[in-house]
Parts: sequence; C-alpha cells; structure tokens
Amino acid sequence: MSPTSNPTSGERTPLLADGVPSRNSIDSLRRAEQEDAAIHGTPLESPAVRTRTARELLLFAWALLATAGVIVLAVVLQHGNSTTTPPDPTDPVPIIPGDPGTGTPYPSISSTPPKKDRKRNLIFMVSDGMGPASLSLTRSFRQHVSNLPMDDTLVLDQHFWGTSRTRSSNSWVTDSAAGATAFSCAKKSYNGAIGMEPGFKPCGTVLEAAKRAGYKTGLVVTTDVTDATPACFASHVGYRWQMDEIAMHEIGEGVLGRSVDLILGGGRCHFLKNSTAGSCRQDDVDVVEIGQRKHGWGYVDDRAGFDSLQMGKNVTLPLLGLFAERDVPFEIDRRHMNDVYPSLSEMAVTALKALEEATKDSEKGFFLMIEGSRIDHAGHINDPAAQVREVLEYDRAFNAVLEFIEGSDVEGVLVATSDHETGGLSTAWQAPNELPVYNWHPEVLLQANASAEYLTILLQQHIVANPAEGQQRLQEWIRRDLVEKRLGIKDALEIEINALATNPLLAMNIFSKMVSIRARIGWSTHGHSAVDVNIYSSGGPGTEDIRGNVENTDVGGFLRRYLDVDVEEITRELREKMVVDVETMVEEGGEERGDDGHPKEWYTDVDALVGYSTA
Amino acid sequence: MSPTSNPTSGERTPLLADGVPSRNSIDSLRRAEQEDAAIHGTPLESPAVRTRTARELLLFAWALLATAGVIVLAVVLQHGNSTTTPPDPTDPVPIIPGDPGTGTPYPSISSTPPKKDRKRNLIFMVSDGMGPASLSLTRSFRQHVSNLPMDDTLVLDQHFWGTSRTRSSNSWVTDSAAGATAFSCAKKSYNGAIGMEPGFKPCGTVLEAAKRAGYKTGLVVTTDVTDATPACFASHVGYRWQMDEIAMHEIGEGVLGRSVDLILGGGRCHFLKNSTAGSCRQDDVDVVEIGQRKHGWGYVDDRAGFDSLQMGKNVTLPLLGLFAERDVPFEIDRRHMNDVYPSLSEMAVTALKALEEATKDSEKGFFLMIEGSRIDHAGHINDPAAQVREVLEYDRAFNAVLEFIEGSDVEGVLVATSDHETGGLSTAWQAPNELPVYNWHPEVLLQANASAEYLTILLQQHIVANPAEGQQRLQEWIRRDLVEKRLGIKDALEIEINALATNPLLAMNIFSKMVSIRARIGWSTHGHSAVDVNIYSSGGPGTEDIRGNVENTDVGGFLRRYLDVDVEEITRELREKMVVDVETMVEEGGEERGDDGHPKEWYTDVDALVGYSTA
Repeated sequence: MSPTSNPTSGERTPLLADGVPSRNSIDSLRRAEQEDAAIHGTPLESPAVRTRTARELLLFAWALLATAGVIVLAVVLQHGNSTTTPPDPTDPVPIIPGDPGTGTPYPSISSTPPKKDRKRNLIFMVSDGMGPASLSLTRSFRQHVSNLPMDDTLVLDQHFWGTSRTRSSNSWVTDSAAGATAFSCAKKSYNGAIGMEPGFKPCGTVLEAAKRAGYKTGLVVTTDVTDATPACFASHVGYRWQMDEIAMHEIGEGVLGRSVDLILGGGRCHFLKNSTAGSCRQDDVDVVEIGQRKHGWGYVDDRAGFDSLQMGKNVTLPLLGLFAERDVPFEIDRRHMNDVYPSLSEMAVTALKALEEATKDSEKGFFLMIEGSRIDHAGHINDPAAQVREVLEYDRAFNAVLEFIEGSDVEGVLVATSDHETGGLSTAWQAPNELPVYNWHPEVLLQANASAEYLTILLQQHIVANPAEGQQRLQEWIRRDLVEKRLGIKDALEIEINALATNPLLAMNIFSKMVSIRARIGWSTHGHSAVDVNIYSSGGPGTEDIRGNVENTDVGGFLRRYLDVDVEEITRELREKMVVDVETMVEEGGEERGDDGHPKEWYTDVDALVGYSTA
Repeated sequence: MSPTSNPTSGERTPLLADGVPSRNSIDSLRRAEQEDAAIHGTPLESPAVRTRTARELLLFAWALLATAGVIVLAVVLQHGNSTTTPPDPTDPVPIIPGDPGTGTPYPSISSTPPKKDRKRNLIFMVSDGMGPASLSLTRSFRQHVSNLPMDDTLVLDQHFWGTSRTRSSNSWVTDSAAGATAFSCAKKSYNGAIGMEPGFKPCGTVLEAAKRAGYKTGLVVTTDVTDATPACFASHVGYRWQMDEIAMHEIGEGVLGRSVDLILGGGRCHFLKNSTAGSCRQDDVDVVEIGQRKHGWGYVDDRAGFDSLQMGKNVTLPLLGLFAERDVPFEIDRRHMNDVYPSLSEMAVTALKALEEATKDSEKGFFLMIEGSRIDHAGHINDPAAQVREVLEYDRAFNAVLEFIEGSDVEGVLVATSDHETGGLSTAWQAPNELPVYNWHPEVLLQANASAEYLTILLQQHIVANPAEGQQRLQEWIRRDLVEKRLGIKDALEIEINALATNPLLAMNIFSKMVSIRARIGWSTHGHSAVDVNIYSSGGPGTEDIRGNVENTDVGGFLRRYLDVDVEEITRELREKMVVDVETMVEEGGEERGDDGHPKEWYTDVDALVGYSTA
C-alpha cells in the first residue's frame, strides 16, 4: 500500500497507479482504518462497523442506504404535515449546539452584550469556488428537502452584503492562489501566487501583521492546510504547488518566524518526512517534529485528538491539528464517518473557543480564517449532490460564527466571500435534442447519498478486490450497489454503466454527470469561471466599505483596516530578508493555467464516454 | 412575402416557411426597406446605401467590415498609448448627449438641485435575462476593448444594490411572465402569468395604481410591447401568448380603461388588423385605430416619427410608438441601422423628457418601466457577441436615467433588476478532450461584428436569392462573407461550414456556438436558469428595504410603497369587473414549460450538428 503521492516527482499518482486506489480520500479512508478509528453510520443507525474488509464495507453501505431510505421516507411523510421549519433531514448528525441539523434551525440573534472597547476579533470566511448559482441551488434543495416555504433562505442569504470581482493580474479567470493573495495581501497577483505579487515579490499578509500586532491567529480548512487559500495567509512561495515549503513557512520556518497560532484541517502528509507512511513530501524533513521542538506546537492528528480539545476549551496554543492525510471527506460522506473526521463547523467552533480563551486577558483579539474548501472540489468534479451538502455545512459554520460574535463581549466582525466560481454551474440544463425545461430537480440530489468521489473509491476497491470478476457481473454490481443504492438512479443507461465499468479512472466524472443531467444541472468546465462572487457579513465597523460590487482586493483592504495593522511593514521585512530565486521560479512555473493543484482526473470531460451529446 | 406569423395558429412560422425568410428581424429589416428608410453604416462611414437588392446588401456588409477593421486597428493602436478612459470604440454611433460611446464616458453626478417636496418619479428598469455572469462578461469585454485598468467597471457595477431570488409559484426556474408579475403585482405566480395570480385571479399592478393616483406612466422596451414584461404592468391574461388581447388592454380596452400614457418599443404587428401587411393578429381588429379614436393615442411607427418627438420635447400623451414590426434589432446590428431604429437609450431619454414635461405642473410625478428586453434573446440564442452589446446599451440607458434623476428638481429613484438569468451563461468553457483553461477571450467577441440572428438572415436571403448555387459555392460564400468577414473567425472547421450550409434553419445557433467556443464562453441551456439576479439602484427613500438578498416580490413591494399607491383597490376592481374563463385557460394553457413565447429554433441544441463533443 503506497502513499498518495510519488515522492520523486511531487505529482499525485493516478487513481489506479500500481493497481491500487490511491487518491486523497482513498488514503483518508484507509488512513482512518489504520488509525483504528471506527467507521460509523449516522447516529440513527446503531451497529458500528469496525472491521476492514471490502465485504464489510459493502455491508456498511447497505446499512447506510437503508438509513437513507428511512430518512427519505420520513421526509416524504413529513411533507404532508409540516408547517413550521423542520431540521434538515439530510444532515442527521448532531454536530454543535444550535446546529440547524439538530432541531434548532438558524436561531435568531437576540441580545447584544456590551462590547469591550477597542479589542476586536475578525473572522474571515472563504467559500472556495462558490459562485452565485450555488446559493440558489442549495436554497432550493433545502426548501425541497424540508418542505419549506417559497421565501425560506439560508443564513448566508440573510447576511448578503455585496459581490466581489475576481480577475487576477494575468487572467480574466483567477485561481485560488491569486484569489487568496487578493485577500491576504490586498494585491492583484498572477494565478498560482502564494503571498507574492507579480515579479515574485513577497507581500506581507494581514495574518502576519495581526500576529505582530499582538492578535492571536488561526486557519481552519477542510482540505490540505498547505492548499492555496490558507497558504496565502502564512507563507510566501512562487507557486501553489510548492507545498513542502508552504508547510515549513506555516509552522514558523519562514523568514518571519511563526505567525500562526492555530491550524486545523487536512493535509497531514505534507508535514511527515518522506520515509514515513502517509507522507507526500519529497524530502525527509519531519515538519511536525521541527514545529514541536523549535516552535512549541502541540499536535493532534485524529478524531480522538480533536475530541480531547473539548470544542476549544482544552487547547494550548500553538496547536497543529491535521485530521486527514489529504482532504477531509466531502460532508455528504463525512457525516457517515463522524467519529473519524471532524466537520467544518466543529473545527470552526473549536477554533473560535480556543482563540477566545487564548485572548481573554489580552488587549487584542484574534484573526481567524475559516475556509469551506471543498465547495470548490465538488465544483471541479461537477458533483452537485456533494456541493449542496458542502454549502449547507458552510452555512452552518457561518451561523456558528455569527452566534459566537453575538455571544462574545468582544467586538467582532464576520466577512465571508469566495475567491472565484468553480465549474460554470448553472441551475438549468438542456438535454440534447430536447427543448429546454424551465425547472431543475432537487429530488435527484436528495436521492444521492454519497459523493461521486466516494463511489469511485468503492468502485476501484471492488475492482481490486475482485480481479477475476467478469464485465457482466461487474456491471450488475455497479448498477445495483452503486448507482441504484447510492445514487438512487433507477434508470441508468447501458452506456453509462458500461462507461463506469470500463473507465474506473474517470468514474468520478461519470457519476457526477449521471446525477447532474438527471437533476438538470449544467456545468461548463471542470475549472473556474469569471463570474463575480458573493460577499456576506455580520456588518460592523467599516463593513460599509465593502458593500456593493467591489474588487477582491478591497476585501483584503478591509481586513487590514479593521484590525488596524501595518501590513506594509511586513512586506518591507519580507523583501529585506527573503531570497527569491526568480529565475528558477520562471523556469519551474510560467503561466500554468489549467493546473491549480488538483488531480488531473478531476478535469476530464467525459462527454465522449457517456455520449449524451449524440444519444 | 408573408407576415411573420401564421394567423390561424397564433404560432410563429419557422424560419424558411414557404422558402421565405420570415423571422422577427427579417421582417424588421424588410419593413425597414419598405418604409424607404435608408440603411446606413456607422457615422464613420460616409456613403449611405439606399437600394434594396441582396447584392448591395453584401456590398454594404463589406463596407461595414472595413469600418470594423478600422475600428479594431484603432483600438489596437490605442492600446499602447491610452492612459485615461476612452469611449467604447465598438459603439461608434452618437446616441445621446453624455453617452459613454461619444467621448464622455460615464460622467459622474456632480450637483444635486433641491427637490420638490412629495412629488416623485420612479424609474424601474428590467434587464431581461441578465444573470450575474453577464456583468463579468461585459465588464471584461469593455476593459479589453478599451484597454481599461483592471478595476474599471460598468455604471451598473457602481450602483450594485443586492440580489433577487426569482423562483415562481410553480417552478424553481421562472419565466419572464411570472418574473414581471412579481414586480408589477408583488405576487409570486405561475410561469406564463400576465398580471394574474395562481388560479387565474387578476392582480392590480403598480402602474395601474399609479395612473389612478395621478401619476403619468410609461413603458419602454426593445422587443414587442406586448411581450411578457411590459404586458404584466398593463394587462391581465392567463398566458403570455395571448398578445392580441394584451395589445387591447394596453391601449385601454381592458376593464380598467387606459392606464398607460406612453409606450415605445417594437411589436407593431400586434396592433394592425390581420388584413394589413405586417400584421400578426389573428383577428381583424385595428388596435391602432381604436386607440386613436376611443382613447386619444397619438401614433408614430418609424424613425422619422421618432425623430419628430425631438427626444421627448415634442410629445403629446398618450403616445404609442412602435418602431419595429417585432423586435428592434440587436444593438450589435442596430448601430448600423441607426436611421431605421432608435436605440434603447434614445427611447429611454425620450420617455423621461416626455413624462417630465407632462408632469411639470402636476403634484404627482411619473412611473416609467424601461426594459433591456433582448439581453434575454441573446441568452436564448446563446450569442455572447450580441449580448455584450445589449448589456453595454442597457448600461448606457441606466446612466441616462441616473443623469435625469440628478438633473431633475423632482425627487426620483431608479431601481433596476432582472427577472431571471437566460442561457446558463458561464464565463469559462472547457473544450472536449482538453484540460480547462483558466481564461476566456473577449477579443473573439470584439471581432464579431454582427449577431448570429442577423447572419442567419443574410444566409437565408442568400440561399433564396441563389437557388441554383451548388453546395461548394455556397460554402465558400459562407466561409468568406459571413464567417470570416462578419464573425472574424479565420479557422472555421469544415464541419461548421457544412452544418451552416445544410441547416440554414439552425444557423443562428451554429453561428452562436462558433463564437462561444472560440471565446471559451459556456452555455448550459437555451432556456432560463434559477440563479439569483442583481439589483441596482440610485438609492433614495425606501431603497434600503431592497438591499441585500430579497425575493423578486420584495422589489414589487418597494415600487408600490415608493409611489404610495393603493394597488389592492385595483385588484378588487379587476376581480369585480373582469370575467376570466378559467376552464378555457386551463385547457389552453397548463404548465407550458419550455415555451416562453420565443421561436422554437432559438431553443435548438446544435451539438449533434457541429459535433464538438465528439470531435
């Protein structure tokens, strides 16, 4: 069993390299087993499944499906009776107090305690890849699922603030690196730039300046903590794929020393030396060890470790929490593995509490960046069933932050936005050779009970475990166990099942397409698009500056102004101390459009395989 | 030469019925000839072309292309020198004073005269079918065309106010009828509803209530004035396709009598009895004559008539101005026929001045609805080159309204929004069998010098005029005269040219696709989508109510509140006096999703013809 990445090339290996499934979540899942963490169903389902064989995973799948069936039936029954706002039955895992999934949907903010003068907290949230259509998609999904009135909204909707223009310095369509640099440095830069301005000039970030000014700082994500968005706040490299170096900067090995106090997320592999199982580093640097020894980091790397934090009440800073080898699974899957991986909202609440505790005797508050990282991934894969659950979870985290600010005696502001749109998502899709239908079908997304990513893992595991199985048996299994039971699709075409069986490397995109076309959801790309993205805010001092339609750099400008920190001083220091080998940068990078660090198979167009266009 | 529609079915005939081109703009163009209006090029081009043969039209095309070439070269040259904000060189027609296309781009509002107490004007603008991606598309196009800085914006962007949720009472995806009823009646209704609530119950509109309260009222559009958006303000029918009846209501033959004082736009055919050339009515009712005789309407029906209005200084109300048989041509084409058709901004300025004059001694001001109707049509046809020019013209009209309010001594508010998005537009498109590219190409849209609609007219005229021409000659002509010269596409594929030559009925969609894929613009449907749409405003009393993310009905609620009019009283009167044959309505209508009144050929998917997906 090999690690996720090829340590000699720095590139991720293809899905079935050496005949072994080896993508992010495959590893996350296997790692979960290695760690003896139990894989549970939802709390509605009592027997825990604790063994590791593929056969038992399948049984577990059956159980999950049955549970899903119960939930679906419950929802159907509920439709006739419900007149009030019920909890979202697609998200049955109790997560945090006040969570909309647990029966107290979207509590309104009632009383405002007096705030301490001048001390302030700033929470900046990023919904990576969430464009305007994702909101309509998720809102309608929620209205359908819970039989809510026509004007029911997400918490986000209620705090709509404006829109952000996202183009980068070298393209009409930005990537996440240039997008996050616009937030952290308040500068337009080139696609791929991590805390760098054009010309490979490092720029100080609001997080670094906040740390220098006495604030505590934190980063919470659901992807690798070395991925572009978090990286742009606490590291400076020419290109986003230099993750080995980004990890070092984040723990304090950059020229500025340590700027971050709390890191929670995935991407553990970047912090382990390459001789360790589960490493994806090219070198033999033990980043965790250096962090602990030289910079005093505490370290937790599993659910037990997360639970020991007691939702932030038992945290000593600095703390590094890496809960997945690469990505935390999509929420649509994670909710069935709640005892392996914490959710975004759990991590957010933990970070808020920990930073609040750490600053309670300080004159300064904290700066926390929280990213719903995998909305973007669902967009790249074009998986609408995964995306709606990612957005709902982000909405939950947003609500948790609002509640924190409301309940705190320190002034606080929440600003949330996206770096860009991903996928060219459209809440309407015209089938070939048909007239357009003025509708789309949220019920299709409700029936889908697993992400296309997870189904691809199951498919590839099945193929590996059954090397002698014939095509007919395999196709029967795919139709029954994956397509009908997991996706709820009863009318799969022969060409679809055949494409899955014969192209398991591309199954992720085929599953996604099967769901999308039935829901009548359109996608125009597996990459990003240029549409303006939404800004949300709690409101508060200075937030009027970013109402309306603004540049993404204006959002960055707000962050530093609200905290009243000197970012330019950091920029001066960086340019004085940091040696950037521009020549090598140019040689290694150039304008690598189309490569934003994700696996190539996410990008593959499968039209020719499934043949809808010519059907 | 037959009229555009089949008088016995009420349906529009296909493009080449009886071997004769007969679509909206074909008729508009022919009508233009019949009216002896000269077809001009841009003012940069001196010789006017005044004859009617196809041959001379082609020569004219050459001249236009040459002009375009000059413009393109001028732009390219300008790129190196320009540091300030130049006018948009793609829109060289001087239209109105202060127009951004004439050298005074986007003048800022400088001084505010004191306003008269209580008297107020409300201008409501609708950008039919303009979703969020259209803004990014047009802004980037403008930045590219005029070499403007990265943070240059449209006037609209500077007045971004919030977003509107658009679902209708019976679908997640609305049509324009339900969308406009949400504005006019402030009620959610079913797709197809014209001033009707579910159950075919007529609802009073803000325009009708305003008229009763003593305001003057106006409707300005670039499509048929009987189309869904204007219809919803001044008529009440079960379904949008009942345009014969809508025309009657609009002139005052409904149960409320006359509510509109000024109507400017297209759709003349609905007002002429079916024995008249250029009529599209099923009956022999002469609506113009009834309007003149019974309700005192003045009537103008051509450019000379429009010019006689002296931009509103010489208008006696009520006035009906119908300047095209059906649609006014797309702005990308109209600017070359400026002496045949007035532009949206010209009509808007004329209406503002006329209504101002008519209310100067009144204690009440006016309510004016202005629609950029054909942004939607460009979306249905998936034509991005036409759409950017439509949005730029809408932006110009928006600016003209802002200037009017600023210069008026009467309090005024401008609110602008869309009814829905059309086309599932995405500013990114992934080519089959390629990785996504993080960019799109505005230069492709700049090179396109005519709409796909207009090119289709030329193609069909050519085929009719050259019945004996062989396929090879036809294809050579298409490649040279249409594709290379008009679209600026030098790398057309054989399959594309062949598809055009052999499917002239679908040429509109093929031309559009050729432009879209080269610009890397994606579309997911020829219908509408559910994404929230933008709201823009001048600000002013009460406009805070519609900041943020609101329902489309909230926009309608604002309109009546701002004018302080009693719409419910109108509803009571309608329900008392109006007899609605619900049974027939249900029989005739039902939920005709997918049919929103546009020609079927707009909706056709051409993937199978041009074969990009399998190329």
